[in-house]
Amino acid sequence: MSLTFTKLKAEFRCINDSCGATYDLNDIVYECRKCGSLLQVSHDMGALKEKSGKEWKDLFDSRLGSVKFPNSSGIWNKREWVLPHVEDSEIISSGEGLSHLFNSERLTKHFGLGGLWIKQCGISHTGSFKDLGMTVLLSQVKHMLNKGAKIRAVACASSGDTSAALASYAAKAGIPAIIFLPAGKVSQAQLIQPVSNGAKVIALETDFDGCMKIVKEVTKEAGIYLANSMNSLRIEGQKTIAPEIVQQLEWKVPDWVIIPGGNLGNVSALGAGFEMAKELGLIDRLPRIVLAQAENANPLYLSYLKNFEEFSPVDAKPTLASAIQIGNPVSVQKAIRTLKKFNGIVEQASEAELSEASAKTDLFGLYNDPHTGVALAALYKLMGKGTIAKGDQVVVISTAHGLKFTEFKLKFHEGKIPGTDQKLVNVIRSCKPEVGAVMDEISGFLQMKG
Amino acid sequence: MSLTFTKLKAEFRCINDSCGATYDLNDIVYECRKCGSLLQVSHDMGALKEKSGKEWKDLFDSRLGSVKFPNSSGIWNKREWVLPHVEDSEIISSGEGLSHLFNSERLTKHFGLGGLWIKQCGISHTGSFKDLGMTVLLSQVKHMLNKGAKIRAVACASSGDTSAALASYAAKAGIPAIIFLPAGKVSQAQLIQPVSNGAKVIALETDFDGCMKIVKEVTKEAGIYLANSMNSLRIEGQKTIAPEIVQQLEWKVPDWVIIPGGNLGNVSALGAGFEMAKELGLIDRLPRIVLAQAENANPLYLSYLKNFEEFSPVDAKPTLASAIQIGNPVSVQKAIRTLKKFNGIVEQASEAELSEASAKTDLFGLYNDPHTGVALAALYKLMGKGTIAKGDQVVVISTAHGLKFTEFKLKFHEGKIPGTDQKLVNVIRSCKPEVGAVMDEISGFLQMKG
Repeated sequence: MSLTFTKLKAEFRCINDSCGATYDLNDIVYECRKCGSLLQVSHDMGALKEKSGKEWKDLFDSRLGSVKFPNSSGIWNKREWVLPHVEDSEIISSGEGLSHLFNSERLTKHFGLGGLWIKQCGISHTGSFKDLGMTVLLSQVKHMLNKGAKIRAVACASSGDTSAALASYAAKAGIPAIIFLPAGKVSQAQLIQPVSNGAKVIALETDFDGCMKIVKEVTKEAGIYLANSMNSLRIEGQKTIAPEIVQQLEWKVPDWVIIPGGNLGNVSALGAGFEMAKELGLIDRLPRIVLAQAENANPLYLSYLKNFEEFSPVDAKPTLASAIQIGNPVSVQKAIRTLKKFNGIVEQASEAELSEASAKTDLFGLYNDPHTGVALAALYKLMGKGTIAKGDQVVVISTAHGLKFTEFKLKFHEGKIPGTDQKLVNVIRSCKPEVGAVMDEISGFLQMKG
Repeated sequence: MSLTFTKLKAEFRCINDSCGATYDLNDIVYECRKCGSLLQVSHDMGALKEKSGKEWKDLFDSRLGSVKFPNSSGIWNKREWVLPHVEDSEIISSGEGLSHLFNSERLTKHFGLGGLWIKQCGISHTGSFKDLGMTVLLSQVKHMLNKGAKIRAVACASSGDTSAALASYAAKAGIPAIIFLPAGKVSQAQLIQPVSNGAKVIALETDFDGCMKIVKEVTKEAGIYLANSMNSLRIEGQKTIAPEIVQQLEWKVPDWVIIPGGNLGNVSALGAGFEMAKELGLIDRLPRIVLAQAENANPLYLSYLKNFEEFSPVDAKPTLASAIQIGNPVSVQKAIRTLKKFNGIVEQASEAELSEASAKTDLFGLYNDPHTGVALAALYKLMGKGTIAKGDQVVVISTAHGLKFTEFKLKFHEGKIPGTDQKLVNVIRSCKPEVGAVMDEISGFLQMKG
């Protein structure tokens, strides 16, 4: 098997097919200068096709479990599909990707599925899937700096996970980071991550959309580079979730992949990864994709009910799934395109549904954050409707670690989330430190467990 | 290379060499029935030596990166060294082990070391290295249940991480778990993990030692199995950290391994892993081990100052490194034996020192919990003394995820930890959502960054 290629190449391309403008990846550009549309990273598929599907699978399998940098990263062990021009010395990696595909016989049996896997993207360096995109963005920035670009800092607006990932990877690279957060709207657990990593953290008296507006203005200033997901470099990293899942399933394609969505960059990334794997012959079919939204922030669900014929932003109401409390998602057009290609479904989950789904599944040894709860609720609802059938094989994308959402867990088990099944609430019992009293407590529990 | 062995065998053996009593691993026994000492799992080294060091390395390397259960676990891909008799169908795994060995050129250079790696044991299923031991304990319980043992529940006393790991793995196995916590002394983030996993959580009006006393009594009752680390099954899992580190370093041995210690089971486990790797010919020398204690809970440090000639428990004072706030460590004799064999050092860290070391290292892209802070402080102090020299290669064991210790991080960056360098405090700036005001904030920051 030859490892050499005709020179691989990637560039920015306008997602508006009737425009199709292209830009160099070293260009500092986030939206098409001709038509204002978003950009995507476009690879030279002809060059990539010099390798057969089997050769790609063998190559990727040979790198899996490598202890050598950079193949010890789940992004850079697929580097030809991500950023082929970046040098080893430019890669900023903290061992992202390669997250465990959690499998439980009990869980699968309980739901009568043919297979149920939870892709644990939250068990990661900064505790969310955002690491996947940030390693790519910071490595490209390092590359641009080496080429003489005048970048003095990277910046993003964030409701939590994005800022943690940006600040951490920027700190590793030694590049200053600037973070804009909506004052009073981010959990302390998330707030303190970029602070610890030495970023300049600025709390703005506005909401996420207001922060986004400011960061777009600020990054027009020479030397501050935009790290939000409208910068499509991030998508290149997140895209690797798809080939990594099928690789972990020994190159078998599940029937369904369920992913929670707010700003909708992640579902486009997931789709792009599967499409690339199919086009290059690693898989021979696509899974169906379910995009799961919180009912309180459901603009894509409403559009789906109308066959995506129209889309209107909504005013997002507060939701426990705070990272997807977005009423006007920046990547909506990309997402709709993806869902159409993947015979996709959009499902929604109420606050009670997402909380219950999270708690119910915790009883099988997981510790689900509320966004994973939204995806699990979609699974349970679609099973109830018969859309997802007994015997189907399902992968659920878990986007963040439950440890970031202690308040959510406490609230549920204090019985404070309205409409939830109180039988799922687990109460801590206080007891005197005496064996007799303790045994009384325990014997009731053991009888209940049968 | 032959993969067959003379039947491999492991058993419990009394750590008191002059006693040497042995017990079957299926026996429910935690302390020697003859002399009261702790037990350890003892392997048939003769049978294990039927493979050469090179054959072991090749076997372990061939399993690294496997997507197949159970080699997808960093414990069970070394199963012959752990519990050779457990069947695949009995293994309760959530993809533990295989944690990233974080490396940073900037960090290494900054400290002038020959190599500095952080073993990220906290980036794990339940957020701490306790997962490593619990997969082993629950798998053995499953095995015993299959053999007809009458075990109705597993139980532990815990100040945090242990209960999270026990509850999660028990939930995965479908085995009831009972947790004893000292009332009011465990952080909410840690408390809510076993609650979510459906364990019976009992808060006792006492301290950790009081909980330990109760759990020892309760587990004398038929059918409740003790899961604290005095059950040496746990050590078998934790032991794999050592061969995994050298495997990730391409079978090279670092000069130093630094680990924080409270109850001291972990340092004995680390030592056992390195010793086994040396005895079986995978490595040809041992690293030196540094055991790092909080100054507020430093009984082993005090003993070390007297060449381990005597050991006295202390009253542990409160420390930010709450998991190692232990004055009377259960595994002290095992730990002293290990440190003597590894030309070991005990170092201590004050509250200010552990906080500063944690914060200083966060600036390189990590997010250190306070226990990792203790280990890092020991590194910096020993470098200052010249004990750890320029050019040395050092591995620091990070035991838990920083996300479990939000309050610690907040406290530091609010400047509320006495005696710390206030220049390390990073303050969030509030600002109006106006480009001019924001640019003023940023320009000061960029000037400072040069």
